[in-house]
Amino acid sequence: MQTVTRYFEDHAVGDRRVSTGRTITESDIVLHAGQTGDWFPHHVDAQWCAEQEFGQRIAHGTLILSVAVGMTAGDINPASVSYGYDRIRFVAPVFIGDTIHVEARITELRDHRSRTDVGFVDELVTVTNQHEAVVLVLTHLYLVQRRPAGDPA
Amino acid sequence: MQTVTRYFEDHAVGDRRVSTGRTITESDIVLHAGQTGDWFPHHVDAQWCAEQEFGQRIAHGTLILSVAVGMTAGDINPASVSYGYDRIRFVAPVFIGDTIHVEARITELRDHRSRTDVGFVDELVTVTNQHEAVVLVLTHLYLVQRRPAGDPA
Amino acid sequence: MQTVTRYFEDHAVGDRRVSTGRTITESDIVLHAGQTGDWFPHHVDAQWCAEQEFGQRIAHGTLILSVAVGMTAGDINPASVSYGYDRIRFVAPVFIGDTIHVEARITELRDHRSRTDVGFVDELVTVTNQHEAVVLVLTHLYLVQRRPAGDPA
Amino acid sequence: MQTVTRYFEDHAVGDRRVSTGRTITESDIVLHAGQTGDWFPHHVDAQWCAEQEFGQRIAHGTLILSVAVGMTAGDINPASVSYGYDRIRFVAPVFIGDTIHVEARITELRDHRSRTDVGFVDELVTVTNQHEAVVLVLTHLYLVQRRPAGDPA
Amino acid sequence: MQTVTRYFEDHAVGDRRVSTGRTITESDIVLHAGQTGDWFPHHVDAQWCAEQEFGQRIAHGTLILSVAVGMTAGDINPASVSYGYDRIRFVAPVFIGDTIHVEARITELRDHRSRTDVGFVDELVTVTNQHEAVVLVLTHLYLVQRRPAGDPA
Amino acid sequence: MQTVTRYFEDHAVGDRRVSTGRTITESDIVLHAGQTGDWFPHHVDAQWCAEQEFGQRIAHGTLILSVAVGMTAGDINPASVSYGYDRIRFVAPVFIGDTIHVEARITELRDHRSRTDVGFVDELVTVTNQHEAVVLVLTHLYLVQRRPAGDPA
Repeated sequence: MQTVTRYFEDHAVGDRRVSTGRTITESDIVLHAGQTGDWFPHHVDAQWCAEQEFGQRIAHGTLILSVAVGMTAGDINPASVSYGYDRIRFVAPVFIGDTIHVEARITELRDHRSRTDVGFVDELVTVTNQHEAVVLVLTHLYLVQRRPAGDPA
Repeated sequence: MQTVTRYFEDHAVGDRRVSTGRTITESDIVLHAGQTGDWFPHHVDAQWCAEQEFGQRIAHGTLILSVAVGMTAGDINPASVSYGYDRIRFVAPVFIGDTIHVEARITELRDHRSRTDVGFVDELVTVTNQHEAVVLVLTHLYLVQRRPAGDPA
Repeated sequence: MQTVTRYFEDHAVGDRRVSTGRTITESDIVLHAGQTGDWFPHHVDAQWCAEQEFGQRIAHGTLILSVAVGMTAGDINPASVSYGYDRIRFVAPVFIGDTIHVEARITELRDHRSRTDVGFVDELVTVTNQHEAVVLVLTHLYLVQRRPAGDPA
Repeated sequence: MQTVTRYFEDHAVGDRRVSTGRTITESDIVLHAGQTGDWFPHHVDAQWCAEQEFGQRIAHGTLILSVAVGMTAGDINPASVSYGYDRIRFVAPVFIGDTIHVEARITELRDHRSRTDVGFVDELVTVTNQHEAVVLVLTHLYLVQRRPAGDPA
Repeated sequence: MQTVTRYFEDHAVGDRRVSTGRTITESDIVLHAGQTGDWFPHHVDAQWCAEQEFGQRIAHGTLILSVAVGMTAGDINPASVSYGYDRIRFVAPVFIGDTIHVEARITELRDHRSRTDVGFVDELVTVTNQHEAVVLVLTHLYLVQRRPAGDPA
Repeated sequence: MQTVTRYFEDHAVGDRRVSTGRTITESDIVLHAGQTGDWFPHHVDAQWCAEQEFGQRIAHGTLILSVAVGMTAGDINPASVSYGYDRIRFVAPVFIGDTIHVEARITELRDHRSRTDVGFVDELVTVTNQHEAVVLVLTHLYLVQRRPAGDPA
C-alpha cells in the first residue's frame, strides 16, 4: 500500500485493474452475520437451505460487496474520495468455497454540476466466480480533485 | 425473526420501519478491515488521522452500509428477494463511538419491464447518527412476487 | 427488533416461541474457544477426537447455551430483566454442521417472595438438532414488573 | 493444559481454585453479540444506555458466564464430564473495562440416583469484579467416574 | 493458569514440556489474514492453490508461530520475560485440517554479557503435525532473574 | 496486490520499503489472545497491569510480529519463498493506541551452501511506534531463485 496522488486528469476511460482471487469461506459468512446481525436462514441454516432453490447456504450480498470493494483498495490517493455507489446488482449467488475475482474499469469521467475544482470518476466493478460467471456489479463513484493550475503533469 | 409472506400488493408507498440504535465501535472497524482487507489509514491509523480533516479515524463506507442493511433485516419474506441497491451516498463520516439508527421507507412500487408475476419495491434506507445527521442513504430494490390469482389477501 | 412492554400479567403458562434454524460451524467453535479461552481437545483437536467416543469435535456447552439464549432474544421488554437460569443440562453433543432450533415455552408464573411489584416468569428453553433430538435444556428466569394500578391492559 | 485423571474419590468439599484476572472489553461484547445474535441496546447502544439505570452498556449475561466457565477450564480430566449448571444468577452488571476473577469451590459430592460407577461433584463458581463485588454465581455439575476397584489412589 | 516464580537456577537443560493438540482450521487462516492484512493467494485463494505445488491453501507462517508460542504459555513466571526468538524456520507447510503439537525443551542456559542479576534460558520449540513431521522450529529466548542472595531454593 | 517476478539478481543491499501506519487496538489484542490462547495478564488484565512496571496492558510479541510481517507483504513474487526469521527482538512494549510503522531494508544477499539455483535475501524489518522508538526488529530470510540462464534482465 502506497500513497500516489492522481488527479482527475490522470484518469482515462478504459483504465483497468484486476485483483488476485479470494475464496469465500463459511468463516467469512459467520463473521459477516456477526458483524451485521443478519442471521437469515439463507446464510446460516444449512438444513433449510438444502430444500431451497440453491440447495446450499449463500453469502450475504453485503459481504461480497464489501470484500469486492476492499479488493479494489489499492494505492491511497489523497486527491480522491469515495462518493458512493450506483446500480449495485446481485446477479448470481456466491456459495461457500467459491473463489471471486474483481475487475475495476473506468467507464466515465464527469464534470461536477457546480464545482470546477473536482470531477467524478466512475469505475465499473465486476465480480466473477471461478466459473467466470458474473455475480455482482456496481459502479463506484469517486470525487477527484482536478490538477491545480501550475502543477506539472 | 419470523417468516411472513408479503406479496407485492401488500406493500404501500410510505410504509416505514425504524431500527433500534447501534454504536459503531473501534472493534467493528478492526473486524471490517480484517474481513475486507481494506487497511487504509483513514480507518486504522489514528496518528495520521489526527492530522487530517476529520481529526480521527472514520468507519469504512461498506461497514456502515452492511450494518445498516443488516439492521433492516426483519421478517423473512419468502415472496421477496434482494435485487440490488441504487444511489448509495456517503453523506457524512461515522466516527468511533457514534450511534446510528436506520429508517427504511417504501418510496415506489414499480412494474417489472417484462415479467407480470413480479414487481419492484423500492425502499429508501436512511442512516442517521446521534446528532440526527444523515450519514448514509441508499435505495434497496426488492423483487417481489405478485399475489397469485385466487389467493385471498 | 422492537420494543414492546409486557407486564407479568401479560404472560401465560404455555406461551410458546420457536426460532428459525442455525447451523453450528467450525468457525463458531474457533471463535468461542477464542472468546472463552477454553481450548480443550474435545473442541479443537480433530485428531484426538477421532479416537474418542463421539469420533469428532463437539461444540462447547457454553457456545450452544449462548447461541440458544441469543436466538430467543426477540422483542425488547422494558418491564422485564433476565434474572438467571436454572437446571441447564447438556443432554447430547452438538457436532460441527448440526443445525439447531430453539423453542421457548412459559412453564410457570411465580410470585416474588417479598416484593409485590414484580413476579417471576419461568421459560423452558429447549434446543433440538436436525434429527429433532434434544441437545440442551434450561429454564430462563425473568423478573417482570406487575402492571401498575390504573394501567389499562 | 495437561491431562490429569481425578476420580470422584479424589475430590473433596472445600477444594478451591482461583483464576487470574480478565478485563471485559468492548471488543468482547461486540464479538459476543456477533456470535449470539443478541444486539439488544443494553449491550450495543451507548446513546440509549446513557439514559438508563446503569448509564452505560453492560456485558451479556451469557458472555460473563462463558468466559467464567472458560477461566475454570484447567486440567483435562478424562474421568469427568460437564453435566450442566444449576442456579445461575446475574447478581450485578459487568461494564466495559471491569476486570473479573473467578473462584471455583467444591460444595458437595453426591451419589448418582441409579448408577454406582459415577457420582456428582458440585462446584460453586463465583465471579467478582475489581471492587470485589459478586457479579455472577452458578453451580457447575460434573459427572465423575468412581475409582475402579483395584486402582490404587 | 497460575503464577509460579522460577529463577534462572530453577531451569535445567533438557527440561521439557509438551502441549495438547490443536487442529488448524480454515477459520484460523481467515482470522489471521484479517488480523495481519496478509491476503496472499497462498492462504486465501483455493482455486489458484489447486494449481500450485501443494495443491491447497497453506497456513501463514506467522499463524503457526503465534499459535505455537501461545500453546507454550503455561505458568506465569514473574522472574522471566520473553526476550526474542532465534532461527525461526518454516520446515514444512501446514494445511487446513492439520493438527499440530508443540514441544518446548531447554537447550542452553547462558550468562548475560554484562548483567550478573539475569541469565538467558534458551528453549527450543518444535512444532509437529499429525504425521509427526516437523513443520516449524524456533528458539525462544527468555531473560530470567537469578535467585536473589539469601533466597532459599 | 500484484504478481511481479523478481529473481535473486533483482535485489540489492539497501533496497528499502516503508509501510503506512497502523494503530494497535484493544480489539487486536483480544483477537490475538483468542487466536493464540495466550491470556497472560500482561495482555488482558488491566487491573493487574496498573500495578506493574508499564502501568497498562501490552500487546503480545507475536501480535506485533505478525502484523509487521503482514504489513511488508507487498507484491507476490513467484520466485521467492519465506524461509524463516532470525534474531527477533522485542525491544520495547507496544501499548493499546500506539501506531506502528514498518521499514524493510535488504541487508545481505547470500549464496546457498549447496544449491546454485537459489540464494538468500536477508531483509531487516524494523518496527517503530509514533515516538519513532524501535519496538521490534527481525531479519526476514527469503529463499529466491536465481535468474535462469538465457532469461533477459
